[in-house]
Amino acid sequence: MAQQQPAINLKRLIKMIEMSSSIGAIPNNGLCRLALSEEDKQIREIFTNWMNEANLEVRFDDFGNIYGRRKGRSDLSPVLVGSHLDTQPNGGRFDGVLGVLTAMEAIFTLNDHGVETKRPIELVNFTNEEGARFEPPLLGSGGLAGVFDKDFVYSRQDRNGKSFEKELVRTGFLGELENRIEDIHSFIELHIEQGPILESERVSIGAVEGIKGMTWFELIVTGEGGHAGPTPMPLRKDALLAATKIITKIEEKGNVYGPDLSFTVGRMALKPNVINCIPEEVTFSLDVRHIDDAVRERFIAEIKDELQTLATEQNVQLAINKLWEVKTTHFHPQMIDQIANSAMKLGYSVKRMYSGAGHDAKYISQIAPTAMIFVPSVGGKSHVESELTLDKNIEQGANVLLDSLLQLANMDTALSHLKTT
Amino acid sequence: MAQQQPAINLKRLIKMIEMSSSIGAIPNNGLCRLALSEEDKQIREIFTNWMNEANLEVRFDDFGNIYGRRKGRSDLSPVLVGSHLDTQPNGGRFDGVLGVLTAMEAIFTLNDHGVETKRPIELVNFTNEEGARFEPPLLGSGGLAGVFDKDFVYSRQDRNGKSFEKELVRTGFLGELENRIEDIHSFIELHIEQGPILESERVSIGAVEGIKGMTWFELIVTGEGGHAGPTPMPLRKDALLAATKIITKIEEKGNVYGPDLSFTVGRMALKPNVINCIPEEVTFSLDVRHIDDAVRERFIAEIKDELQTLATEQNVQLAINKLWEVKTTHFHPQMIDQIANSAMKLGYSVKRMYSGAGHDAKYISQIAPTAMIFVPSVGGKSHVESELTLDKNIEQGANVLLDSLLQLANMDTALSHLKTT
Repeated sequence: MAQQQPAINLKRLIKMIEMSSSIGAIPNNGLCRLALSEEDKQIREIFTNWMNEANLEVRFDDFGNIYGRRKGRSDLSPVLVGSHLDTQPNGGRFDGVLGVLTAMEAIFTLNDHGVETKRPIELVNFTNEEGARFEPPLLGSGGLAGVFDKDFVYSRQDRNGKSFEKELVRTGFLGELENRIEDIHSFIELHIEQGPILESERVSIGAVEGIKGMTWFELIVTGEGGHAGPTPMPLRKDALLAATKIITKIEEKGNVYGPDLSFTVGRMALKPNVINCIPEEVTFSLDVRHIDDAVRERFIAEIKDELQTLATEQNVQLAINKLWEVKTTHFHPQMIDQIANSAMKLGYSVKRMYSGAGHDAKYISQIAPTAMIFVPSVGGKSHVESELTLDKNIEQGANVLLDSLLQLANMDTALSHLKTT
Repeated sequence: MAQQQPAINLKRLIKMIEMSSSIGAIPNNGLCRLALSEEDKQIREIFTNWMNEANLEVRFDDFGNIYGRRKGRSDLSPVLVGSHLDTQPNGGRFDGVLGVLTAMEAIFTLNDHGVETKRPIELVNFTNEEGARFEPPLLGSGGLAGVFDKDFVYSRQDRNGKSFEKELVRTGFLGELENRIEDIHSFIELHIEQGPILESERVSIGAVEGIKGMTWFELIVTGEGGHAGPTPMPLRKDALLAATKIITKIEEKGNVYGPDLSFTVGRMALKPNVINCIPEEVTFSLDVRHIDDAVRERFIAEIKDELQTLATEQNVQLAINKLWEVKTTHFHPQMIDQIANSAMKLGYSVKRMYSGAGHDAKYISQIAPTAMIFVPSVGGKSHVESELTLDKNIEQGANVLLDSLLQLANMDTALSHLKTT
């Protein structure tokens, strides 16, 4: 980097964030901007206009992923940068949005300063990252990375039976297969941490080393229903009391593994869920995460047996169904170093850390060298209306993104691509 | 009872039950016949026709309660007999229905044998016993007993915002206030046990001594939400893990009180109830019952303190809101004896027992001497499609009802009315 270091324009960036925050706004500073909804269509059109203003070549691929290409001095493989503009139904203003808009701002800044790069830069907005409308999440980046085939992605339906494909056509964002980005030199994504670590340790920048592996289970406890009044306690097979003991056992066993293992029962449904009926069936989810896949697997193997024993003791049936499993993703070591170095060069504190949550970077890392930049979330909050990243942290994150982007886009050679699993 | 003992006609009774079972039929032998629905209207019309066939004087009161009067030799105060024809959304064929149709059959039997009684007999079908459509339950009998005032009953709305009053008018069963039954000599109600005691002890008839008192609570545990991935375990305030400990504590304390105390957590809701979100709020119900009001109250006072302490330890907020409370109802001792005697006279085994569930008899006992007859429920099941009472038990119950009815309707004097609370 011989040329003078440009810095991003925070005012312009905040203005873009404010515009984005008005599309799909809900009370308490929240956003509801489900993938391929009217609101998503609107922000996509605004984003496309910004890209046109920045003289980017705009195109959509067949998953509705939007790209804007800034030419390089050469035709070397491009550096990809971006995230997603869709949100959870009660989401905040920053999750995903910040990754797209800091990248947009970085490009405006390069234009302002007339900075040319060796490699082209491709700005991207991935479709349906959240999975809040079409399950599973990460459909756009997963489709691009070949994790999901096109028929699968197109056939996903929302709760009203509307398909991904139909909504892609309706919103006008169905593009060509030929428009998918290929031969990516590197992908860099800025994102809010969605956790409290950076804030609590007063660190400005997370240099993300990868994404924790996770397994999702559904546990179904089947007891026996009955009226809460006349059924004597000793004759009951109360599925909820049994589920309570099962969850306590998961917690006991999990705590032994220390704080690196996380486990969450986030969803639960009782049948019949009536105040004066003994629960006959309780279904609940279990989300287990650990950086070390082997530790996660050992914990799961261990509790499976113990929970079955406990269920038998409780006189109920227990089914443990695996819903989903992903191994830990390790990002590109050279890129992680480079992000950490950019932060230090700019005088910001930095922490190397793993992400607990999934991101588009997870799938893109399967086809290109990838890394992420985290910025702090106030109170560790995300996927809620009160999600907040302070202006100062936004500015620092955007500057690290800009610096990293410049370094990547001026590299002569390819990064060795370490195949992640 | 000098005259010869008549016996009910099981074939005719079964035919009426089968007809009833076809109105609002759902798969697996179930019934969905919500109060004042089209299906309820239909069974009410059929029931009214049967009463006309039996030469009863049919009338409806302003709560839609349907009466059919069989004249007595005198104008002494009438004996009231019946139950309800509405069901739960996934209800069975017997709950309530059996009490109305065994009474109908008893009257047909009296007619067959030309039996006159001193007192008039009034057959009744109470409106909205279940509370499945209009909350709370027991609106018809509660309205009649003065527990609920008319404005309250009329303004109850179903989930679609339709009011009790409008639906009463629509179905054609809005009658006159003048038609409410007054000056009731005694009320007798046959019902399925809705519990497994009679079946498991191989007893044919329950002589019901009263209805257990109960308290309903809603407990709200408020912790802190967050993403299941990035939020470290030690920093969490997981409302579900805390709720789990609270329920375990309720169970521990409850078990100390022995099997006469029943406690049920039947309903639970998590916020946001998403697989990868830490529950920030868990709301659950608690239903507590005991024959002895003082014991129930002692248990509640005891857990309230302990649960608050536990919540503080768990770093969550706990609100304990009382939703409803009713004291134990004690039925009329002379009527309980008489039911037990009728059963023994007919050669059936009998058990004196308290009802765990509420019934129309609960409220009517506030305005008249009251008792109930229980018949066994196979597997103790009720409020489910598979609810079943065997023909043999139906026949025995109907004969006990007939015999009790004859004795009551031939009494010269009033029963001393013990005010129940």
